[in-house]
Amino acid sequence: MKITGTFLDEISHDIPHQNWGRKEWDADFQHMKNVGIDTVILIRSGYRKFITYPSDYLIKQYGCYQPPVDLVEQFLELSDKHGMNFYFGLYDSGHYWDSGDMTTEIDSNRHVIDEVWQKYGNHESFKGWYLSMEISRRTKGAIEAFQKLGQQCKDVSGGLPTLISPWIDGKKAVMAASGQLTKADAVSLKEHESEWSEIFDGIKGVVDAVAFQDGHIDYHELQDFFEVNKKMADKFGLQCWTNAESFDRDMPIKFLPIKFEKLRLKLEAARKAGYDKAITFEFSHFMSPQSSYLQAGHLYNRYQEYLKELL
Amino acid sequence: MKITGTFLDEISHDIPHQNWGRKEWDADFQHMKNVGIDTVILIRSGYRKFITYPSDYLIKQYGCYQPPVDLVEQFLELSDKHGMNFYFGLYDSGHYWDSGDMTTEIDSNRHVIDEVWQKYGNHESFKGWYLSMEISRRTKGAIEAFQKLGQQCKDVSGGLPTLISPWIDGKKAVMAASGQLTKADAVSLKEHESEWSEIFDGIKGVVDAVAFQDGHIDYHELQDFFEVNKKMADKFGLQCWTNAESFDRDMPIKFLPIKFEKLRLKLEAARKAGYDKAITFEFSHFMSPQSSYLQAGHLYNRYQEYLKELL
Amino acid sequence: MKITGTFLDEISHDIPHQNWGRKEWDADFQHMKNVGIDTVILIRSGYRKFITYPSDYLIKQYGCYQPPVDLVEQFLELSDKHGMNFYFGLYDSGHYWDSGDMTTEIDSNRHVIDEVWQKYGNHESFKGWYLSMEISRRTKGAIEAFQKLGQQCKDVSGGLPTLISPWIDGKKAVMAASGQLTKADAVSLKEHESEWSEIFDGIKGVVDAVAFQDGHIDYHELQDFFEVNKKMADKFGLQCWTNAESFDRDMPIKFLPIKFEKLRLKLEAARKAGYDKAITFEFSHFMSPQSSYLQAGHLYNRYQEYLKELL
Repeated sequence: MKITGTFLDEISHDIPHQNWGRKEWDADFQHMKNVGIDTVILIRSGYRKFITYPSDYLIKQYGCYQPPVDLVEQFLELSDKHGMNFYFGLYDSGHYWDSGDMTTEIDSNRHVIDEVWQKYGNHESFKGWYLSMEISRRTKGAIEAFQKLGQQCKDVSGGLPTLISPWIDGKKAVMAASGQLTKADAVSLKEHESEWSEIFDGIKGVVDAVAFQDGHIDYHELQDFFEVNKKMADKFGLQCWTNAESFDRDMPIKFLPIKFEKLRLKLEAARKAGYDKAITFEFSHFMSPQSSYLQAGHLYNRYQEYLKELL
Repeated sequence: MKITGTFLDEISHDIPHQNWGRKEWDADFQHMKNVGIDTVILIRSGYRKFITYPSDYLIKQYGCYQPPVDLVEQFLELSDKHGMNFYFGLYDSGHYWDSGDMTTEIDSNRHVIDEVWQKYGNHESFKGWYLSMEISRRTKGAIEAFQKLGQQCKDVSGGLPTLISPWIDGKKAVMAASGQLTKADAVSLKEHESEWSEIFDGIKGVVDAVAFQDGHIDYHELQDFFEVNKKMADKFGLQCWTNAESFDRDMPIKFLPIKFEKLRLKLEAARKAGYDKAITFEFSHFMSPQSSYLQAGHLYNRYQEYLKELL
Repeated sequence: MKITGTFLDEISHDIPHQNWGRKEWDADFQHMKNVGIDTVILIRSGYRKFITYPSDYLIKQYGCYQPPVDLVEQFLELSDKHGMNFYFGLYDSGHYWDSGDMTTEIDSNRHVIDEVWQKYGNHESFKGWYLSMEISRRTKGAIEAFQKLGQQCKDVSGGLPTLISPWIDGKKAVMAASGQLTKADAVSLKEHESEWSEIFDGIKGVVDAVAFQDGHIDYHELQDFFEVNKKMADKFGLQCWTNAESFDRDMPIKFLPIKFEKLRLKLEAARKAGYDKAITFEFSHFMSPQSSYLQAGHLYNRYQEYLKELL
């Protein structure tokens, strides 16, 4: 299964920044192209007070900091140049994480969507929207948020597609900053299907593709969960993508590039389940030959050998 | 705000060692010069049983290990060569951290100061003393320790200046080895001013400059705290420096280089508050183009772009 | 004390993978040779469902994943080429870690030993067995497991030597994924001697060499523990090796290369205690000039300077 998309993690929750300038980003888009990536997805346009573009609205309304670079403009220009499809990730106010309430995510993004489409909608590479709220089961208000924001994204942009990337509430679904790697109360396959069928039913029509993060379950559970996901996606008319995490969740250092054998197991499970597309979180830290983590460059080489196998 | 000083972290609490030899250090001093650094501050001359110079006193009295290299001599020679001002950081016995009692820090350093000045005082680059006890509010015995040791440093060396670098007891003041990034019981601005006015009053005359670590408070709190610090420093006749941390306290990996945007926010806050000088903890791991963390080299490039903006 | 052996950590519990291919491994064996390493020890041939060679038995019986590369074949070929002595590390089912019961380790390895000797015993570099169960005091069933498996290794292979590498239950014996660096209830020297004398008595004859991991005690405790270990090894007729850990257990990042001064203290303690051989965990991440951790290349340089001192 070939990876054809990657997130761009420039406003990070938990991955240290590489401090790249435009030159490094330009080169990285070329590295991506070289292995067949055609889609780049901004992970979020802002997180709390840090933002990726000079948003008058967010600076005024949420006290966000004036960003030193307009990353949205930069990424769109590079996407235009390299022929990439750019998905814009919505703003994450942090309010939901603190309070369990989606209201602020909806309110802020209603403005952000309009502002962004007005500023950047003319770029030919602007090809979709990423509804950046990372949810799992029991995320209150998620269906309503996806409905309202997904619909608005489509309305302003002439129906551009929308993507979500939730996580499976498996044994490795623990906080990044915690000292733990696993938890005891993981979701069962049956609960997963029941709860996500309800969510898929609620978001069909406003969400076009769902890319579950593939790193929270054990490797021997991949096939079963992937097949259930595909079945549900088919039933409710969603595209079924996989978000193949290229970092390793099993190690005390959170996080460094994954062992290729693990990535391969995950991609093969998605292939066998008939998934529509594979994207990764994310190329630039964990798979790029110019990553600050030199393991990433070796992963890039191993992955290229795998591509040759696929031919 | 230009960074003109850096700590040298060769006896580290919590930053893994780079295993550089003299050649790498010589090159790094050149890299520092190239971005306008004129001051290097040895973070401490020893920590528990590991020491930076062959101290007869510490080896005999505290069972310290014979160091394989005389780093103090090496750093002074390189400071002489590159025209740097070298500040010598006192010994940290570790006893205070274990017991809350400053007595051992005072007793040991009374000997260390004499020994060091006798051995190394002839170097023209020996330009100051760093009282290495990292304190915050409620550090018992800190005023007395600074008074005694600061006075002795000045007495033996013909009045060379003394520096301290305490931390603000903000939300990010957690132990490096803990799984947490923040704590709930952060100090308020008012408590900070009240408690530090008392400390500044107690150390005026024996401490010439105070460089608060800038990483324990949130970015939107910087301006208020920095202005209070400057006001207090002015009132009690201290120079007000900032210790601009160039590592990122917000990430699960403790610690990698900071995102440039964050460093910029902190430097700008110091500039606006009229600070006298900016130093960093520290150049060689987190900002150097030859750092083992390749993100540091990119931070060096971003920082140089910022310097051009300042012109 | 010269390091003449290293583990190969290709199925790791806790060290992120470098994603090297055969080319990088070939080069690394050359780097090892260049500093006098003549022995490579596969840390384990499998861990839970991940395995290093296509074992029909483990795939069928334990649901292990088909490995993308036969690492055992690769390492044996490279050992043949570079004139290394290869020690094969047994399979770790993970069952002991979960249950405290050694039965599965014994049962699975009885098959693995036969299978492996049949497949790979013809390689001239196959020179020994590593009984990979990492034990300390109070590890139930360890003596019986070492007896049975050690005897079988010798029986099938015409008496090739066997090695174990336990840990001392010192203050730094904490879980890698935990937020802690030390614990309070460390073993005393006297308890260590009493408990390990019993274990050595039980395994003499089936285990030829014991290489205690040297990283769980404090540096000032090294000499006493090393001398007791040597005394016990001599008494029960075992060779006494040291497993000189080349990563740093004292830092929040778990784990990066160790400060050379610390490695030197440990090697010198082993030399003074008259140890027979030093091996390291492990060269390729922590001491190799091509490691993804650039600190490792500098450690390689510092270590080479130390070798010159030894002449």
